[in-house]
Amino acid sequence: MSKQYDQIAGQKVQRLEAISDGVFAIALTLLVLDIHVPMGEAIHSEAALLASLRPLIPKFLSYFLSFMTLGIFWTGHSTQYSYIEKSDRHLNWLSLFFLLFVSLLPFTTAFLSEHITFKLAIGLYWLNLFAMGAMLLLHWNYASAKNYLSTEGEESEAITHGITRRIFIAQGLYAAGALLCIINTYVSIIVIVLVQLNYALAPFSRLNSRRQADD
Amino acid sequence: MSKQYDQIAGQKVQRLEAISDGVFAIALTLLVLDIHVPMGEAIHSEAALLASLRPLIPKFLSYFLSFMTLGIFWTGHSTQYSYIEKSDRHLNWLSLFFLLFVSLLPFTTAFLSEHITFKLAIGLYWLNLFAMGAMLLLHWNYASAKNYLSTEGEESEAITHGITRRIFIAQGLYAAGALLCIINTYVSIIVIVLVQLNYALAPFSRLNSRRQADD
Amino acid sequence: MSKQYDQIAGQKVQRLEAISDGVFAIALTLLVLDIHVPMGEAIHSEAALLASLRPLIPKFLSYFLSFMTLGIFWTGHSTQYSYIEKSDRHLNWLSLFFLLFVSLLPFTTAFLSEHITFKLAIGLYWLNLFAMGAMLLLHWNYASAKNYLSTEGEESEAITHGITRRIFIAQGLYAAGALLCIINTYVSIIVIVLVQLNYALAPFSRLNSRRQADD
Amino acid sequence: MSKQYDQIAGQKVQRLEAISDGVFAIALTLLVLDIHVPMGEAIHSEAALLASLRPLIPKFLSYFLSFMTLGIFWTGHSTQYSYIEKSDRHLNWLSLFFLLFVSLLPFTTAFLSEHITFKLAIGLYWLNLFAMGAMLLLHWNYASAKNYLSTEGEESEAITHGITRRIFIAQGLYAAGALLCIINTYVSIIVIVLVQLNYALAPFSRLNSRRQADD
Repeated sequence: MSKQYDQIAGQKVQRLEAISDGVFAIALTLLVLDIHVPMGEAIHSEAALLASLRPLIPKFLSYFLSFMTLGIFWTGHSTQYSYIEKSDRHLNWLSLFFLLFVSLLPFTTAFLSEHITFKLAIGLYWLNLFAMGAMLLLHWNYASAKNYLSTEGEESEAITHGITRRIFIAQGLYAAGALLCIINTYVSIIVIVLVQLNYALAPFSRLNSRRQADD
Repeated sequence: MSKQYDQIAGQKVQRLEAISDGVFAIALTLLVLDIHVPMGEAIHSEAALLASLRPLIPKFLSYFLSFMTLGIFWTGHSTQYSYIEKSDRHLNWLSLFFLLFVSLLPFTTAFLSEHITFKLAIGLYWLNLFAMGAMLLLHWNYASAKNYLSTEGEESEAITHGITRRIFIAQGLYAAGALLCIINTYVSIIVIVLVQLNYALAPFSRLNSRRQADD
Repeated sequence: MSKQYDQIAGQKVQRLEAISDGVFAIALTLLVLDIHVPMGEAIHSEAALLASLRPLIPKFLSYFLSFMTLGIFWTGHSTQYSYIEKSDRHLNWLSLFFLLFVSLLPFTTAFLSEHITFKLAIGLYWLNLFAMGAMLLLHWNYASAKNYLSTEGEESEAITHGITRRIFIAQGLYAAGALLCIINTYVSIIVIVLVQLNYALAPFSRLNSRRQADD
Repeated sequence: MSKQYDQIAGQKVQRLEAISDGVFAIALTLLVLDIHVPMGEAIHSEAALLASLRPLIPKFLSYFLSFMTLGIFWTGHSTQYSYIEKSDRHLNWLSLFFLLFVSLLPFTTAFLSEHITFKLAIGLYWLNLFAMGAMLLLHWNYASAKNYLSTEGEESEAITHGITRRIFIAQGLYAAGALLCIINTYVSIIVIVLVQLNYALAPFSRLNSRRQADD
């Protein structure tokens, strides 16, 4: 008796996690490849050397921005997999499409940093954030509908609620930030970056606060 | 007493899976390296910026195509390893040769997208698909002949049947698609892409269908 | 009942280790991408070929230097994770910021090797070493304050002492080396490199020493 | 009480395996980055397209050669780790230095393929093979002297014998092949490649032979 390919394909969660971490590691470092060391022949003083770094600042900023954004989505993806214990071919593909957008992010970030005064650049960047969020949501919904989670009942519902709320709030803030480009593109970017910094820098504010000790 | 190298070499399946995921992660993102942000100095309007993206469309399409194809073969490879629990030096090499063709795929895909009206480009692309499929088949046959599977008897046979049928059907469709280039290369590409979309987009059609609930 | 995202995010240590190893692997090999084979048309003798390698020497040295430095910090990071058995969103981010500086190191190393007579180049390189050390320290402190370690009590304290002492001594030596650039930038670099060689080459001196047998 | 850093550093074998697989995955695919698709504007016939691929042949061959060589050494490294169950800081560094030479191999291979008539190119390529072999030997000797193996007594000795014999035979053949460059560089390369093909293609000859069935 033969088995349907769907029944046998892609059941190991570890492989999915491994390829995701690989793609994320590459995406995280992709924009660093774009930062070239200024060549030395025309540089004769410390001041000139410092000045040679100035044109690289936008590249450092986009690198930092894409690192931060990818960190947020990597945390989202790995959070889901701390509860998902089974996979199938369809969940594989939902993850792969998520990764497709992950590896496009360095491009849309660099595009934004090169064309910072254009609404199109903000629109494209936002579209990328939106696509990653949408894929994460589909991904969780599928895994939980298929009972691939390690938790059950109320526990599962509480986690589902926490994960979906996080996606909706973050995506709502990104969308609001993107819409602000109608007023001014810089305002728009600043809002989006602040939202991301809020997520990324939380551990540092925690390190200094009393609340940590009481956790 | 000495041991033959064959008896001691390469018995851990995890290493093989790790290096495969690493090579796949690189191959998946290779064509993204080719998509360069259009530079901003000559661009003074939203329309001009949009126009500057137009020449990138073939690059986005080849990126998408190679991502999809690699996703299909990655699923195939990881499906085999959800049943293979032992390895040896020979299985290692069968996997490595599979990976050799995997990392050539971004080249053959870009070659196809650059020379889309030439039969040679389709032939080369098809040859790559064929080589990957042939390696996967050899790989499974070797692992199952050596009893490296975690299953036995009928269960094993059913899985073998499912895996080989999938490879034969997919390769048959790719070959048929490639042969259509005798009529027209565009027809040929469209057929191959539709076959791949069928495999890749299955989860999305499932998400909307009733059948999912009854699985 | 909903759960706070903080309570559910990022609890698997394995994912963090995987993405760290991925980023390190890329950073380790990044400067190799910069070493291009000298082209052959103008080369007609063995001596000319040898001469064509000479301009690559600084690139080989920076590759070696960054490899050694990254090896030291990778050992530091993986040492921490041989004791950390739980993670959370904040520890994830502390690791990610550590990785942000890790993937900048190839740049600061190449910048140093290109501008070896400038204090700014040494300053930047040192800043990178300092940032990596500071992140490792914050990282350990957070993990141990949160009781995420696999050890307890005195054992934990002894490890904490060993890890922090190592970071302080190494960072003290790096800072002292960097300050020597007031006298001469070459002296400065030589001291920093000797400190690193001392850490990296320890196994080779051990291989030849009697002490190893008595360990 | 404080602990010496040596006692606490780098005891997890998994991390070492992960970073090794990451570096190998990058090294394996490095030469593929060098194969650029010939651009299409001047190409008006199938024959012209085929001709445009001809200059890429040396690049494909070096890619194939480095893939094969790295596959051999990856098998060697992962074979050792199927018996090593503990690590320390020194073993970490022996692995890292091995990886240093691993990621140089794509360079020395491309250098060889670009300067195929020069003894220096063969010498450099051989030096790389030799350095990798020497590191693997040191690595195993250290791990077995420290009793980090999962096996004991006679079993251990048999494995040690098998591993060291394999390294000595392979390195002897490489050295002999390299020395043949005194006669002719092409002879030299052909011998080295045949030695490697012998290791890499073994599974294919096995697949067709009766001996497999009797294993």
